[in-house]
Amino acid sequence: MTKKIAVLPGDGIGPEIMAEAVKVLNALDLPLQLDWADVGGKAYETSGHPLPPATLKLAQEADAVLFGAVGDWKYDKLERALRPEQAILGLRKALGLFANFRPAICYEQLTHASSLKPELVAGLDILIIRELTGDIYFGQPRGRRTAVDGHFPGAEEAFDTMRYSRPEIERIAHVAFQAARKRNKRLTSVDKANVLETSQLWKDVVTEVHASYPDVELDHMYVDNAAMQLVKAPKKFDVVVTGNMFGDILSDEAAMLTGSIGMLPSASLDANNKGLYEPSHGSAPDIAGKGIANPLATILSAAMMLKFSLNHADAAARIEQAVQSVLAQGLRTADIWSEGTSKVTTREMGDAVVKAI
Amino acid sequence: MTKKIAVLPGDGIGPEIMAEAVKVLNALDLPLQLDWADVGGKAYETSGHPLPPATLKLAQEADAVLFGAVGDWKYDKLERALRPEQAILGLRKALGLFANFRPAICYEQLTHASSLKPELVAGLDILIIRELTGDIYFGQPRGRRTAVDGHFPGAEEAFDTMRYSRPEIERIAHVAFQAARKRNKRLTSVDKANVLETSQLWKDVVTEVHASYPDVELDHMYVDNAAMQLVKAPKKFDVVVTGNMFGDILSDEAAMLTGSIGMLPSASLDANNKGLYEPSHGSAPDIAGKGIANPLATILSAAMMLKFSLNHADAAARIEQAVQSVLAQGLRTADIWSEGTSKVTTREMGDAVVKAI
Ligand SMILES: CC(C)[C@H](C(=O)O)[C@@H](O)C(=O)O
Ligand SMILES: CC(C)[C@H](C(=O)O)[C@@H](O)C(=O)O
Repeated sequence: MTKKIAVLPGDGIGPEIMAEAVKVLNALDLPLQLDWADVGGKAYETSGHPLPPATLKLAQEADAVLFGAVGDWKYDKLERALRPEQAILGLRKALGLFANFRPAICYEQLTHASSLKPELVAGLDILIIRELTGDIYFGQPRGRRTAVDGHFPGAEEAFDTMRYSRPEIERIAHVAFQAARKRNKRLTSVDKANVLETSQLWKDVVTEVHASYPDVELDHMYVDNAAMQLVKAPKKFDVVVTGNMFGDILSDEAAMLTGSIGMLPSASLDANNKGLYEPSHGSAPDIAGKGIANPLATILSAAMMLKFSLNHADAAARIEQAVQSVLAQGLRTADIWSEGTSKVTTREMGDAVVKAI
Repeated sequence: MTKKIAVLPGDGIGPEIMAEAVKVLNALDLPLQLDWADVGGKAYETSGHPLPPATLKLAQEADAVLFGAVGDWKYDKLERALRPEQAILGLRKALGLFANFRPAICYEQLTHASSLKPELVAGLDILIIRELTGDIYFGQPRGRRTAVDGHFPGAEEAFDTMRYSRPEIERIAHVAFQAARKRNKRLTSVDKANVLETSQLWKDVVTEVHASYPDVELDHMYVDNAAMQLVKAPKKFDVVVTGNMFGDILSDEAAMLTGSIGMLPSASLDANNKGLYEPSHGSAPDIAGKGIANPLATILSAAMMLKFSLNHADAAARIEQAVQSVLAQGLRTADIWSEGTSKVTTREMGDAVVKAI
């Protein structure tokens, strides 16, 4: 049965890296139908909104979404509702993509690229699971008003609402325990329960859900401590589960620890394993159009898509092996290049992966 | 004129490290009156509350507060309002300590202790200024209720309120620009304005206050990016200013980058430079009572206190030079020890600083 993929390249380096991922998908000769649409700043320019109705419809009707990246400084002056990143928030909400998987893996050949000492990151393989449709990202009420209490009653203030309901925490906790079960059976739940009511409920519910997974070891860590332990001893983590806000910060910190964020894919899943797949890095407008961006994170995102949403685990494995093989051949885009390896362009890297398949 | 210092040792290693800091203060022969009181778990045990009225009164009447550390696993089961860390939140609020200074400095002799490659941290000297009495830490309303909207209407939910008023942001921005002016004149304001209303006001107000400090270079960074850039290239930062929640995470991340958090002091100031001074590390109950904790962060906190609140900048400089000199002599507590240096106890380290003064 033909599966439908919504291909949304977006802004900056998005189109370049997406072209390579699509090349790789085509090389696999699977029954896939690819439908393209604009998103982000590009969509704003062509149709006045970062997530136009046609793009949203395409994403809703597809079996999976392959997403490049959005954002460019040139849209900084737009009102928030029209800025490129609203497209990604809108897609998460409309598609119910509550479970974000962000692996932080340090590839053997790229250990030297990390800021950290090699012994601290060699073999690093952690998985951050971030809740993606709740928390202060979407909580109401929010806005501006006149303060009635606090330090300066009468002054203008802005406010947002952090919130989580019990079933929202339960479902992400189940996802996380199940993921930990398939790995090293250790889960760290990150919160700020010493200060926040929302975190206290988070901690209580994760602890309750743990009862169904006695084979998984659970520990709780405050977010400030987690930010420290990631720097101090990242390999002590296996799976980390946390809310939307803390997950935004910690998943980026963890990705940067590997030193090769250009290699890291991500998945955002709904309750039925439909998902949106995108590289962990951003749109990098400073290097857009130069043909030097690393397409591997997007190519690996396509592999995650085949495995998680499209039931093509074999094809996913072929992509992953091909990526390993181009690294073994010494091919490197500029971001991961080092003395003694061969520097290649975005397109050359994509071609090499296709050849290795 | 005799200055009054409230000395609050607290829990875990608090009493041990405080004893050394007090020894150092006494060695300076200044007109200081030291008054001691219990705080945290210790105070809960002696008087049923982590911040008893007598302790609060002492802190209010003093010219400065020297604080050890609070917290121990044995209090984990207490209701939140009685847990040790409520003492520190209570003191910040009652004393109006809105400006938290957290230097992240990498001492030349301790560069190797960092997780990061030496070239990335050698000479690191950044200052994180965290707003400390606002944000989601103190915002009302907060609590539990039945959800009326969101993903699961009718379910139990917990919620908190993030908020900042214009004058709260203005005063911390002034503090930060003034601090940057005394350093390398670069200020990075960290927010999440692409998602949060509170952050958008933060960004707007910091930008407005910048008009009074044209000699300082200002840039804005999203918190997820800041968490990455701290790992990637920490030396690119000079002064960072941010809200209470993001500051909690980033200041700990930055401290851990240095690899020697046992060396880092902190100051929390009110509008008149009255302040509370404490080490950046915690109460470390696992090593309490063993005499191996590093007292230097507390000793350096006492130095900050002399400079910022007590108008004894010369005495502060004497302490700082004495600390440099014990490091140069090769004396190290266990946390910063390495091959070829001499391992000393908490007390031996304090004695060595006194001798060097
Ligand atoms: C662009 C932004 C709204 C987004 C987020 O904060 O979730 C991004 O940082 C991410 O992590 O995907
Ligand atoms: C103990 C806790 C409430 C406190 C905070 O979050 O502010 C601590 O982490 C700190 O940074 O001083």
